[in-house]
Amino acid sequence: MNNAATSWPKPEEVGEAMAKAVCRLPGTANRGGIEDVNVFDQVREELALLMGVSCPEQIALGCNSTWGLNQALFGFPLEAGDTVLTTKAEHNAVLRPLYRMAQEGVKVVYVRTDESGRILPERWEAALKEHRPRLCVLNHASNVTGAVNDAETLCALAHDHGAAFLLDLSQTLGYIPVKLETWGVDLAAFTGHKYLLGPQGTGGLYVRPGLVLRPHMVGGTGVKSDLKEMPEEMPLHLEAGTGNEPSYHGLLAALRWSREHPLDREAVDGVLQYLADGLAALGCRVIWPDAPRMPVLSFTVPGYTPEEAGDILTGSYDIICRTGLHCAPDIMEDIGMPSGTVRLSLSRFTTRKEAGEALAAVRDLTESVQL
Amino acid sequence: MNNAATSWPKPEEVGEAMAKAVCRLPGTANRGGIEDVNVFDQVREELALLMGVSCPEQIALGCNSTWGLNQALFGFPLEAGDTVLTTKAEHNAVLRPLYRMAQEGVKVVYVRTDESGRILPERWEAALKEHRPRLCVLNHASNVTGAVNDAETLCALAHDHGAAFLLDLSQTLGYIPVKLETWGVDLAAFTGHKYLLGPQGTGGLYVRPGLVLRPHMVGGTGVKSDLKEMPEEMPLHLEAGTGNEPSYHGLLAALRWSREHPLDREAVDGVLQYLADGLAALGCRVIWPDAPRMPVLSFTVPGYTPEEAGDILTGSYDIICRTGLHCAPDIMEDIGMPSGTVRLSLSRFTTRKEAGEALAAVRDLTESVQL
Repeated sequence: MNNAATSWPKPEEVGEAMAKAVCRLPGTANRGGIEDVNVFDQVREELALLMGVSCPEQIALGCNSTWGLNQALFGFPLEAGDTVLTTKAEHNAVLRPLYRMAQEGVKVVYVRTDESGRILPERWEAALKEHRPRLCVLNHASNVTGAVNDAETLCALAHDHGAAFLLDLSQTLGYIPVKLETWGVDLAAFTGHKYLLGPQGTGGLYVRPGLVLRPHMVGGTGVKSDLKEMPEEMPLHLEAGTGNEPSYHGLLAALRWSREHPLDREAVDGVLQYLADGLAALGCRVIWPDAPRMPVLSFTVPGYTPEEAGDILTGSYDIICRTGLHCAPDIMEDIGMPSGTVRLSLSRFTTRKEAGEALAAVRDLTESVQL
Repeated sequence: MNNAATSWPKPEEVGEAMAKAVCRLPGTANRGGIEDVNVFDQVREELALLMGVSCPEQIALGCNSTWGLNQALFGFPLEAGDTVLTTKAEHNAVLRPLYRMAQEGVKVVYVRTDESGRILPERWEAALKEHRPRLCVLNHASNVTGAVNDAETLCALAHDHGAAFLLDLSQTLGYIPVKLETWGVDLAAFTGHKYLLGPQGTGGLYVRPGLVLRPHMVGGTGVKSDLKEMPEEMPLHLEAGTGNEPSYHGLLAALRWSREHPLDREAVDGVLQYLADGLAALGCRVIWPDAPRMPVLSFTVPGYTPEEAGDILTGSYDIICRTGLHCAPDIMEDIGMPSGTVRLSLSRFTTRKEAGEALAAVRDLTESVQL
């Protein structure tokens, strides 16, 4: 129950595709090989469908969402004195780059969330009016509470006030539908190993056509080796070094599997609701955002620190969970959980029976405290 | 015959380990999981043995050698006006970061190679004396010619003149023995998917204890989430974001396989010599460095551009090779091959019979030109 960290299980096809790629397919993209097709371009095609974008070549593929966010933030044309608007709900993959940028003279403004970890459009607009940012960065859903933000509205507001909009899709892509072109999103970072059901080591960045970033990592591109800088055309512009070909074969298998097996989001939300109700009935404090929400539950167990509760759930009950600040330290104050939370995060494969086992384990915890 | 791009085949165990990791092992390092051991730390232990270093935690693991080189070059404490010494033999993974650094005021000096692509210690020392660099960066072997540099001597000379020494092990690690601590190397970048026989998507950077780099990619570390910057201790300091766990399981399998199956370098060199002699007898111009050398042959076929020859070898004979500038554009003048080369690169698995098939294919080419 740690799918917000990395989804598990993956479809069997993912591992098979990776093993086949590494052991059966010689060569490497743009660097000599005998494959008829380029796996990276095939992944781009699948992702473009999923993201609602018509230019697959604008999707640069790297090694994780952190790569995409670093590329977006350090590569966006900002100058000292410019302002970036973000939120208290962000992950350290956003907060730490912004902290460095702040040290170099960029002003960073943080919008508070509501008690469920969601960004309210009225607060967002007020901050836009007051601070006139050049760039906004926001996660599509909090990795702590699962509250999904209204990206379309928040993006439109950013544009109304002259700011570009970077959306962090790490948590949502593959679970919440997105329409990047319709929404007008300028930049969107994503990972392959969460709700896309692919392997770690995959992830990247969508860049709106016409927006030119400065490459954060530079190096060989296999072609155009005579250029002293990265080639100008996407996606080569942002893809230095040998790509992770076997893992992208795995991600391609995952994307195709998902296309053939549509997600029943209501069913997953039903299991989540059952788990949330059960935890609340046991006296746990549960963060329960209004829909739309990710299948993520943050809670505390009376009588235990999050770490104590999580260690027992994993150590004695084999229930994998995550505890603490979840790489998102700033949201804890907004949601009233200063010491962090226990987080259970489900996937489409999590059953009501498994949720019941988790509830039974937490019941044991609460009862042993009462003794 | 494109092992200098990515080795092929890999041991069967590599694919098996990756498939098992992605489909059988839930969770992710430092972010909730039930594994007893951390695969990244196990890889560090194996690499430390191989590299001759006693502090495995000083080996940061990323997604490729380009990641390691960007981290080393952009993270090293340099100021405008400082000088970096490098060579004409470097790969774009070094040249392109240095080009950017030069635009930002760092002075970059390039030492010429001899005709085989090797750096001569006397030229290196003369440049050190003349330019007083703060940092030197050098590949251990040219990816174009296979000439292995005397890293121990070149490192000692750099230190004698007060410069730090960054060694690019991309081509050599797993084939040429290295002793980083004995040699005193300050920084060494490497990849997992060439002569280590692991998958793409792996690679990293060794950093001498006491040398502190500025992280080039920043983000979540799973632990110490309350810090606004990357944790100070290695390897966390340089490892932002979720690591490529399945591929590192593959690399671990490859490293263990290699430890149990010692390389017979003389046998590989014998096949290389046979191939080189045969190509020369067919009238090809072959770059043949003195030993030590990597199993890499760069040549031209009379009557064909490198691209023409390579396209026929691959298209008509299924011989995978690489042609052109090999992401190392500046060496071509030094080795007298301004239009690039055809490169055949062997591995321990390449047989004399396969080399003979390559020679027969090149013979067809030369004979069809004569007609």
